This record gives sequence, C-alpha cells and structure tokens, in this order.
Amino acid sequence: MANNIVSLNELVSQFERLPGIGKKTAARLAYFVLSQPADYAEKFAASLINAKEKIHYCSRCQAFTDLDICDICSDDNRDKSTICVVEQPKDVLVFERMREYRGLYHVLHGCISPLDNIGPEQLKIKELLARLSDNTVTEVIMATNPTVEGEATASYLSRLIKPMGIKITRLAYGIPVGSDLEYAGEMTLTLALDGRTEI
Amino acid sequence: MANNIVSLNELVSQFERLPGIGKKTAARLAYFVLSQPADYAEKFAASLINAKEKIHYCSRCQAFTDLDICDICSDDNRDKSTICVVEQPKDVLVFERMREYRGLYHVLHGCISPLDNIGPEQLKIKELLARLSDNTVTEVIMATNPTVEGEATASYLSRLIKPMGIKITRLAYGIPVGSDLEYAGEMTLTLALDGRTEI
Repeated sequence: MANNIVSLNELVSQFERLPGIGKKTAARLAYFVLSQPADYAEKFAASLINAKEKIHYCSRCQAFTDLDICDICSDDNRDKSTICVVEQPKDVLVFERMREYRGLYHVLHGCISPLDNIGPEQLKIKELLARLSDNTVTEVIMATNPTVEGEATASYLSRLIKPMGIKITRLAYGIPVGSDLEYAGEMTLTLALDGRTEI
Repeated sequence: MANNIVSLNELVSQFERLPGIGKKTAARLAYFVLSQPADYAEKFAASLINAKEKIHYCSRCQAFTDLDICDICSDDNRDKSTICVVEQPKDVLVFERMREYRGLYHVLHGCISPLDNIGPEQLKIKELLARLSDNTVTEVIMATNPTVEGEATASYLSRLIKPMGIKITRLAYGIPVGSDLEYAGEMTLTLALDGRTEI
C-alpha cells in the first residue's frame, strides 16, 4: 500500500485477515469506513465486541447461541431422534436455509487433520457420544465436508457409533444439480455412477 | 438468515453495509469472527475506532492523513506545479501505485450530482481554488471518473480555473490495454477513434 498512515494500514490488515478478502478489497473497505460518519465505525466496533462476548457454543449441539441451549435444540417441533453431524457452525445455517431438515445438529468444530495437528480430542466428539447415550437418537447423518479429512472424520465416528446400535448415514455423492458434466471431477463422476438410481 | 441470535445478526448487518459484501459473504465473515479467539474481535474493533479517530483530511489536498499536512504535500521531491484532481481519497492510492506521477493531488470528495443533491458547495472546490491563487501551480489534471457526473464536474472546474491562466488537462480516453475491442463501449470506441495517434 502506497500510504504510510499507521492506523489506516492497521485497519486494512484487520480486514485482510477476513477469509476471501485480498489486499485491494481490504483497502477499499477501510477507505469506505473512513468515508462514513464516525458512528458507523463505533457501531461496527461495538457489534464485533458484543457478538464475540454474548455468543458461545450451545451446551448440547455446540452451534453458536446466545442462550444456554440454542433455539434448535430447545424447539419441541424438531425430530429429536436424528442428529446431523457437521464440521462448522455455519454448516448449520446452510442446512437451515434448505428448510427441509427437521432433526437436530451436532457441530464438531473442525475435522480430524493430522497435518494441522487436529486429532479427535480437539473436536466435540465426547459431547456427541454423550448425547447418543440415552437411546433417543436412532440415526446420525454424517455431513462432514467431502474432503479426505471430512471422510476420515466420518468413518472414525461411524466406528465409534455403530456399536451403539444407531443407524449411520451420510449425504449422497453425485453431480451437483444445474452444473455441467464437463466440470464434474473424476471422483465425483465415479461416485455418481456407483450411486446411480433407476428412473 | 435462519438464526435468531440478535448480536450475530447485528454483526452480519454491519458487514453487509460494506461495499460489495452481500448477505452470504457478510454471514461468512461474521462466523469467521466468532470462530477466532476473542482478541481478534477486540483488535479489529480497536483499529476501526482508532483509524476513524486519528485520520482526517489533509489541510491542503484533502486526502486522508493522520498529520496536519499529508506526506505527499510535505514531500519536497514532488512537483508542486502540477495538481491532479480526483473524486475520492482512494483514487490517490490508485495513482500512487502507478509510481509515475510526481505532482500533487486534490481530493474533491465526490462529484457534482444534482440527483444526489450534491452541488459544488458540498465539494472541496473552495480549497482547490485557494491552492491555485499563489501562482505556483501551472497545470491542473482532471482525473474525475469517466461518468456523466465526473465529466460535468471537470468542465465546471475548468470554467472556474481557466480564467486564472492555468493549463487544464484531462486523462486520455481510449480502449483499455489488454482488453478486447468487442467489449469496448460505443462511446469509448468513438473517443478512441477521435483521439487516434500516428504510429
């Protein structure tokens, strides 16, 4: 950056730490903040602090909440016999947007990844097993990411959960709706072929 | 957003107010902040407040600075006889990145736009005229945006400045380097043809 205003560069580098925000965009955002009335920066700062202070993990599903138990876990209309296991809190949002799934969730907060020094003990696996111990849950849906690490985490969990007599499923692999076959990876196509259904 | 955590939604809507950040990206950024250690949110908040508090307009060129007179205005190696007039503080950065221009700047902080109720008196025009009164400046380069409003602002300024005996130039219009003729607008092509040079 061709400026040597320390406080501006600091703000730019804070924006740059956000995922998907590069140098140029970070500069654009910082300049935008400076061009706004002072109360914008103040409100933005307050909401950062406030959100981080008030929001913690739901004591059951480990998703984000500002309560002890989140809205989904405490909703009597949800199907308590099914738990969908996801890697990140934001994955819960992705499922909720669909408005199809009526069961509960469990957020692992990552996946097993020896390269990043993340083993099972760093994830919310103990908490998941505790939730399965009272026999209300009959199905666990593995919705970890379709990556090597996500797969490894799903199969590690299945080995732990299967002996408890609980059905374990995972999301179907296949070609994404609306895309072109040309852009499907080989592995995706192989799995789509394996999982073909009669029409 | 399928969540009803007030403080989270507030943070999302603050991110959404940033230019170019849509609903989904804002949610992703807010979740990222929550997933970081608490000191990240604190540092981010502090740098927002700090930048907004310390940075103001240079008393000469009206660009952002944390000093009374910015680095460019107080740099003895810059050519004090040329002023490049731009609309926004970020435009100064764009020019400085090029490392070609050695003159000074003047930031108008907008352009004349009757639809947005912005007239000449809302812009830093008085300040520009004051800088031109001591006869050091011999050329003013108009680098307002190539829009109807930018053009109108440039021609309004020329009418004011020309009587002072100062040369007024503007950036050349033409086809952008590296692009395809197919994508050039009709107006751009017309101006590129008018401004053709011998090779």
